[in-house]
Amino acid sequence: MRFSLGCRLAYQVAAPTPFLFNVEAAGFGQQRILSERLTIAGDPPYETYTQPETSNRLVRLIAQPGALTLSYDAEVELDAYVAEPASVDAIPAEQLPFAVLPHLNPSRFCPSDKLAAFAHAEFDGPESGHERVARICNWIYERTKYRPGSSDAMTSAIDTMIDRAGVCRDFAHLGVTLCRALGIPARFVSCYAWQLDPPDFHAVFEAYLGGRWYLFDPTRQASLDGLVRIGCGRDAADVSFATIHGQVEPTDMQVRIRAHDEKATLDHRTAMAVSTSAE
Amino acid sequence: MRFSLGCRLAYQVAAPTPFLFNVEAAGFGQQRILSERLTIAGDPPYETYTQPETSNRLVRLIAQPGALTLSYDAEVELDAYVAEPASVDAIPAEQLPFAVLPHLNPSRFCPSDKLAAFAHAEFDGPESGHERVARICNWIYERTKYRPGSSDAMTSAIDTMIDRAGVCRDFAHLGVTLCRALGIPARFVSCYAWQLDPPDFHAVFEAYLGGRWYLFDPTRQASLDGLVRIGCGRDAADVSFATIHGQVEPTDMQVRIRAHDEKATLDHRTAMAVSTSAE
Amino acid sequence: MRFSLGCRLAYQVAAPTPFLFNVEAAGFGQQRILSERLTIAGDPPYETYTQPETSNRLVRLIAQPGALTLSYDAEVELDAYVAEPASVDAIPAEQLPFAVLPHLNPSRFCPSDKLAAFAHAEFDGPESGHERVARICNWIYERTKYRPGSSDAMTSAIDTMIDRAGVCRDFAHLGVTLCRALGIPARFVSCYAWQLDPPDFHAVFEAYLGGRWYLFDPTRQASLDGLVRIGCGRDAADVSFATIHGQVEPTDMQVRIRAHDEKATLDHRTAMAVSTSAE
Amino acid sequence: MRFSLGCRLAYQVAAPTPFLFNVEAAGFGQQRILSERLTIAGDPPYETYTQPETSNRLVRLIAQPGALTLSYDAEVELDAYVAEPASVDAIPAEQLPFAVLPHLNPSRFCPSDKLAAFAHAEFDGPESGHERVARICNWIYERTKYRPGSSDAMTSAIDTMIDRAGVCRDFAHLGVTLCRALGIPARFVSCYAWQLDPPDFHAVFEAYLGGRWYLFDPTRQASLDGLVRIGCGRDAADVSFATIHGQVEPTDMQVRIRAHDEKATLDHRTAMAVSTSAE
Repeated sequence: MRFSLGCRLAYQVAAPTPFLFNVEAAGFGQQRILSERLTIAGDPPYETYTQPETSNRLVRLIAQPGALTLSYDAEVELDAYVAEPASVDAIPAEQLPFAVLPHLNPSRFCPSDKLAAFAHAEFDGPESGHERVARICNWIYERTKYRPGSSDAMTSAIDTMIDRAGVCRDFAHLGVTLCRALGIPARFVSCYAWQLDPPDFHAVFEAYLGGRWYLFDPTRQASLDGLVRIGCGRDAADVSFATIHGQVEPTDMQVRIRAHDEKATLDHRTAMAVSTSAE
Repeated sequence: MRFSLGCRLAYQVAAPTPFLFNVEAAGFGQQRILSERLTIAGDPPYETYTQPETSNRLVRLIAQPGALTLSYDAEVELDAYVAEPASVDAIPAEQLPFAVLPHLNPSRFCPSDKLAAFAHAEFDGPESGHERVARICNWIYERTKYRPGSSDAMTSAIDTMIDRAGVCRDFAHLGVTLCRALGIPARFVSCYAWQLDPPDFHAVFEAYLGGRWYLFDPTRQASLDGLVRIGCGRDAADVSFATIHGQVEPTDMQVRIRAHDEKATLDHRTAMAVSTSAE
Repeated sequence: MRFSLGCRLAYQVAAPTPFLFNVEAAGFGQQRILSERLTIAGDPPYETYTQPETSNRLVRLIAQPGALTLSYDAEVELDAYVAEPASVDAIPAEQLPFAVLPHLNPSRFCPSDKLAAFAHAEFDGPESGHERVARICNWIYERTKYRPGSSDAMTSAIDTMIDRAGVCRDFAHLGVTLCRALGIPARFVSCYAWQLDPPDFHAVFEAYLGGRWYLFDPTRQASLDGLVRIGCGRDAADVSFATIHGQVEPTDMQVRIRAHDEKATLDHRTAMAVSTSAE
Repeated sequence: MRFSLGCRLAYQVAAPTPFLFNVEAAGFGQQRILSERLTIAGDPPYETYTQPETSNRLVRLIAQPGALTLSYDAEVELDAYVAEPASVDAIPAEQLPFAVLPHLNPSRFCPSDKLAAFAHAEFDGPESGHERVARICNWIYERTKYRPGSSDAMTSAIDTMIDRAGVCRDFAHLGVTLCRALGIPARFVSCYAWQLDPPDFHAVFEAYLGGRWYLFDPTRQASLDGLVRIGCGRDAADVSFATIHGQVEPTDMQVRIRAHDEKATLDHRTAMAVSTSAE
């Protein structure tokens, strides 16, 4: 499926301020960037970097006093792999690829070590790995109110479990945490999300099952085959869309994505197993 | 400086159990493995892997019921880089190598995001970056009792700050946390530590200053130029020397390291800036 | 029902050490002390005090170096009030007796303010107040392993909810917390518990419903009409059976209780609403 | 010293809503109410209650839809007891009045059990008890920014210690916590505070020393001999000035206090030991 997407971020800057952006679509096997353009008003110098282990793409610059406006536009071809959930099983620890192992470790917002007993008591069962993670997502969805403002940048998955409220970031953290607590590698994903309403950056998670990373969205707000990945990491700390070392005033933020196929519909929310990434 | 080092780990295993070891010395520019031998009694099949981003080396196997004994011996040449602390400065965020940036992020045991105000209030100052981190180490050393059993696998740096007690792992976590809170990249290091008494695996940390990773040991228990790195990572979760998926009984653990130069003395604890790793 | 009960506590003391005991049965309307005897070997001087708001009884002394042995024996008549659970309802906040209101507040081990959303989502319903609290107890019982050593003196109700393991103290704290989170006054109760096996001091909780304090034991280890109250308070901090200001070695601890009626059986665990205290 | 004080609280209420107020000055030995008047616009029925153990005064009513306006005016004579700090010593645990002992226990916002090692390491010393608590207050004042909005209703003393920011409630909680951690009974006090700028309800704390409750204000915002107590308790949970069981909109809040003696000046902030309460 082909998508046009992009964002526009604007800030008012009082003093020279370092910015680090992570808003460009990642390029990898099943997600190809057909064309793209990054524009920063006034053409200030900037550096770019692609992390080898994640394909996350960073843009760094020092904003000078005045307005800073970054615009990004891209055409992306997404080739989602779709499987039957019952056939997608968890992989025993001793058979996981070594490169995947760090995604079993607890992280700042995903303290999976604290939830081992909880997760096994609540989620052990006879179903396939994908069905088990889908059950986790249903459990999160049914117990957690999606409520902007109910959490902040320090909210952990345990806070979310207790508060029973959060935003996409928190839902994804809780999913990641419960998977890791069960021995299923999981990572946090920031993305452009087709049909997300209102449009915004979105956060979902991937679990490593049956030899691939499968996508899950416990908020049920976006179609799994319409998620264009920006970044992935251990949790939200690794994929902040803007890291700003100083006080600036955000003045605008627009995020957009549309499918080229007008007839495309949002149909793969939970019924099928969807993966866009083998590594 | 040349070191002979190694360990012997033994377990009694009741049922087939996956083990993941990270006990081999890492090999990189300033730390060369001259020779080494890994032996597992009974020669069971095992896999090995070296993480590209850290040089950490993993050994994985499924232990069968009975005794499992792993032995490791190595000769390592360590070429420590030594600098004058006053000349080793912190690097502004916008000039840090991109590959170093993830080590600014909070992690499970190093919740640096929570300590930003604390760290700046306590440690901002006019001195060089190395001197500042040394001040952090002194602060930790003076306020924290080294007391085996005072912490456990879930103890975070904030717990340690409040409890005022811990072991090497906790001292290192607190150092990492305070550095990151100040905008200084820092990572957790597991190692063989020359002259550590009693001998054991040790944990210290590295801060990225002046274009290199400098070693710090807030416990003051080991010489900085006698630390042979096993692994590095965001915190202890990334460098566990043995990850065991099941119930086994440890029956023996021996760790040893000696310097070849009989006249070597433990002299670089805090007076000089010591680095063994540029990346 | 009439009970014979008591305890024997022995310590080895190295230096003069203040002790505060709270092991005597409380005396109030439905719990009458028929006879009792407190003995401290060697007859050292001690002070006693009965808290007016709780009827908790304290014994204070300074133990001299050597052995300290406290023995307590009592005959107690317990006149349990038994009601039909469906008829025992919660009382709206504006109709609660003023003296009961502090038991709506969060306390150290019962952070009910954090669980308001959780408790309402999980436990709101059409049943009577007693049935709702019984449902809370069932929920705790089904989700929590009774496992000595799984918690410590700093474990809070949220820790217990997450760890899914604890001892009687932790079960009671979680019950108190969920009740307060729902607006039901609740307090922690330490007691002698008939038929508890093995014999020990026990902890349960009371919820204020229908104009009385009703007893609940989420561990299901003791009969509700065989609980002889020692103390009540906001949480375990208020009813420690021994508070010791110094390092001493406990050398013996025996707790016992038996019913005078040989034919008495343990029959009121959850089927009926049991109260021994109107205030 | 004589004070005129009072408050005016107004709300817009949508549905019948229970309110519990604790805004009236407490009456006790050294704080005499000379005259007072409580007015609730429209003269709805209300209940009052004075807690026997604290002298806190409660007003309870069900507000009907529309405006709710409570006004309180009082003349209070405050007879502060002033001592030389060096002469006011801490009392050993075994000599404390029994009624004071609960104020050694940790509470929801004052988890003193967690800070025992910290407090002893930081604050043990040869000075008098009052001087030690004054040192605690100085330590808090020097390390904590007074910043409205930096904390919320769930902020504990440990959060404040780590965040290094808070409001009067948080400063008082931290003071209470550190005292209890040292074995000094301490309680939270809500009050009208003469010369507080801008006028508002204020929170300070009392420590039990030398046979009396001595006042401390780590914010240094008010004169210790101009604090007219409203309520005291284990922490802020016990002395909320308004507890509202429902959604209402606050529309006005005015708090005022003035000294009758025009020449009175704010002079006893930290130099002298000030107490208004023996019990």
